[in-house]
Amino acid sequence: MDRPQSWEARAEEYSLYGFTDLPSVHRRGTVVLTHGEGPYVVDVNGRRYLDANSGLWNMVAGFDHKGLAEAAKAQYDRFPGYHAFFGRMSDQTVMLSEKLVEISPFARGKVFYTNSGSEANDTMVKMLWFLHASEGDPARRKILTRWNAYHGVTAVSASMTGKPYNEVFGLPLPGFIHLTCPHYWRHGEAGESEEQFTARLARELEETIRREGADTIAGFFAEPVMGAGGVIPPSRGYFQAVLPILRRHGIPMISDEVICGFGRTGQTWGCETYDFMPDAIISSKNLTAGLFPMGAVILGPDLADRLQAAIEEIEEFPHGFTASGHPVGCAIALKAIDVVMNEGLADNVRRLAPRMEAGLRAIMERSDHIGELRGIGFMWALEAVKDKPTKTPFDGSLSVSERIANTCTDLGLICRPLGQSIVLCPPFILTEAQMEEMLEKLELALNRVFAEVA
Amino acid sequence: MDRPQSWEARAEEYSLYGFTDLPSVHRRGTVVLTHGEGPYVVDVNGRRYLDANSGLWNMVAGFDHKGLAEAAKAQYDRFPGYHAFFGRMSDQTVMLSEKLVEISPFARGKVFYTNSGSEANDTMVKMLWFLHASEGDPARRKILTRWNAYHGVTAVSASMTGKPYNEVFGLPLPGFIHLTCPHYWRHGEAGESEEQFTARLARELEETIRREGADTIAGFFAEPVMGAGGVIPPSRGYFQAVLPILRRHGIPMISDEVICGFGRTGQTWGCETYDFMPDAIISSKNLTAGLFPMGAVILGPDLADRLQAAIEEIEEFPHGFTASGHPVGCAIALKAIDVVMNEGLADNVRRLAPRMEAGLRAIMERSDHIGELRGIGFMWALEAVKDKPTKTPFDGSLSVSERIANTCTDLGLICRPLGQSIVLCPPFILTEAQMEEMLEKLELALNRVFAEVA
Repeated sequence: MDRPQSWEARAEEYSLYGFTDLPSVHRRGTVVLTHGEGPYVVDVNGRRYLDANSGLWNMVAGFDHKGLAEAAKAQYDRFPGYHAFFGRMSDQTVMLSEKLVEISPFARGKVFYTNSGSEANDTMVKMLWFLHASEGDPARRKILTRWNAYHGVTAVSASMTGKPYNEVFGLPLPGFIHLTCPHYWRHGEAGESEEQFTARLARELEETIRREGADTIAGFFAEPVMGAGGVIPPSRGYFQAVLPILRRHGIPMISDEVICGFGRTGQTWGCETYDFMPDAIISSKNLTAGLFPMGAVILGPDLADRLQAAIEEIEEFPHGFTASGHPVGCAIALKAIDVVMNEGLADNVRRLAPRMEAGLRAIMERSDHIGELRGIGFMWALEAVKDKPTKTPFDGSLSVSERIANTCTDLGLICRPLGQSIVLCPPFILTEAQMEEMLEKLELALNRVFAEVA
Repeated sequence: MDRPQSWEARAEEYSLYGFTDLPSVHRRGTVVLTHGEGPYVVDVNGRRYLDANSGLWNMVAGFDHKGLAEAAKAQYDRFPGYHAFFGRMSDQTVMLSEKLVEISPFARGKVFYTNSGSEANDTMVKMLWFLHASEGDPARRKILTRWNAYHGVTAVSASMTGKPYNEVFGLPLPGFIHLTCPHYWRHGEAGESEEQFTARLARELEETIRREGADTIAGFFAEPVMGAGGVIPPSRGYFQAVLPILRRHGIPMISDEVICGFGRTGQTWGCETYDFMPDAIISSKNLTAGLFPMGAVILGPDLADRLQAAIEEIEEFPHGFTASGHPVGCAIALKAIDVVMNEGLADNVRRLAPRMEAGLRAIMERSDHIGELRGIGFMWALEAVKDKPTKTPFDGSLSVSERIANTCTDLGLICRPLGQSIVLCPPFILTEAQMEEMLEKLELALNRVFAEVA
């Protein structure tokens, strides 16, 4: 093999890039990273970037957290791998399940492990299909989600995801129904109050259930705050309007907490922040602070009991992943929960979230091209607009948000372009000084790009 | 919360068990494991088991390999997590992709990472759907696999899996077509030679393509040796008969090497052992010797070029997992490849495989209730039968293979019941003495159970 020599060329020779803007890579080269320091990552050329994305929302304790690394290393010395099939599992797996139920909003429940949020959502769909069929409702197979929702990339979790880009795969599969995204600023109609908007979305749900038939619907999945949709908190009263309708029709409600879970919104779970009680929780990302691929389905009492009864009938639930409940992942998750909840990280989010909001709001107010600031806790988005009063977006061909993200990268700040918004979801360890650095570099980049395109 | 006290009770309170025979768990309790020693695992009560399953085929270097743990620990100190989106990735990711293409059968290619074999197969299906649509063949969506194949548990990879148990989920989804399992001993007809059997399966493939229309078929997936189907090597000449038909109809052939990959069959890849060239390889399990959840799609030159061209057109491939190309997983995989290929593990498989085959064959010959021995390298199955000459299976209600596996467990040996067969796939580090221990305990268990049920 004639091997390319530079890191960038080697990366491009052997990688099929996912979720990567290829024109940017061709122009700018791949950024190959070697290590991290707190919330910073460092590339092969020694360049340092403040990662205001926390990797992909998940590296909440930064990129060199000693305690987490020690937990991982100790478990590698103790028991470096096992599964959870055939009535065998590691002690770490038992302890983590107990801990997850303890910190969940549920009085009791059961846990099923996967390797990712995609697999956890896919698993939850299979669980619902199985449960309804077992209870005599085999036609209950349709899945309700919302436009702009992100639930993963397996064929089924991508079908739940409400993004037009999945058309290139011929997805969604039949039976995946997307409701209106509860984004009042963008989808509210002229003269419609936020409360009226929420009521309209509740009516849409009710009408959808009537049209499709409640007895054809397996479940409703929602992120408390939509993450990869561009940090979209629910419109006021949204979950309080939606939950009673689902309950009335016997439709389980699944809270996809892959991004919100474990402190991102300022409380442990997004469903606590938005004050609703789901039937199950999907967890991943922060679960291991990004140190290990892991997802979990946390079933509340009702679904846990019904599923257990259905499984007892067939004697064996024919589902599970090789690394489900991996002892190292479980040991890391146990430590990550402790670090976030008891070592000041969740406190830091609550302490600095108002500063983050105020800083971003000031940037918005100083700019003619930021139409909306939205978010909560340590997850925020600024929406770029060509014209503020009319909310007119920039022309798509300008790739405004990619330009902003690339300019930020040049300044040593990593943030994420999503649609025409810029998303900031820094690690929970961020100091006040690092917060200021983030805000300053962001504003500099915004001003440069808006001066070019406006 | 009123917490249960024993490990077993805690496990049962908080776990939803997957791939677990619940009557066995209720009767015998959960085995909670704390650590490992070479090919042995040890439970909370200090009981020691020789794990002839290698965990789930994957812990090929055993349960306390120092070099692998060191590689993991060093990377946790260096860079404990990152993704591979947005044109950024870790140096470990770049190095592993290069290494995987180097050791693949392909002259060149590209790698895409997932967290499991399920996700890798699911990803490959999405890649094929995307590719065919991009090339003007959006109707090429059907997936061909075989009965008894195991390709995973996401809704799509479970649809590829050819097991009747997936009916409880209402799977397979439409468009997943299962061909005859190439198991001559079980499916060969009276008077049919193995060559005639293979020719019949090739005709079935040809007729299926004609019936469905080649222009509706996205790809054909096959394990070189079926693993969770019960270790079923292909009938003689199978891949040589099938490949030309697929080529003639422009149907990509994907070798699912999740189990066969990295030495299990005695060579690096199963497609080398059975002498065929696929268009892509699916890898997982052994890839990290079980120390980290990871899967990989390794694309050969043709698919790599066509997919890359299709992606360039839309500028961004909208697919990828948060932990795709995780630096710790990649560092472990680099070390695992080195350990298996250069530190004597692959050699040990080749050296001891004949002893394993001979030992199992002797057990079969001494028993009236083992109908077939099948396998290769370090993957073998013994098929239990009520009557040897007629190949009549035991009554299903006797749960013969579960009984054998449970009796083995009582004797300190872990092996796996699959259908009415017992599967043995020990770690590659097995010594000759441990091989003898495995064979002795297995025969003892077989004799005990057959004395009860026959």
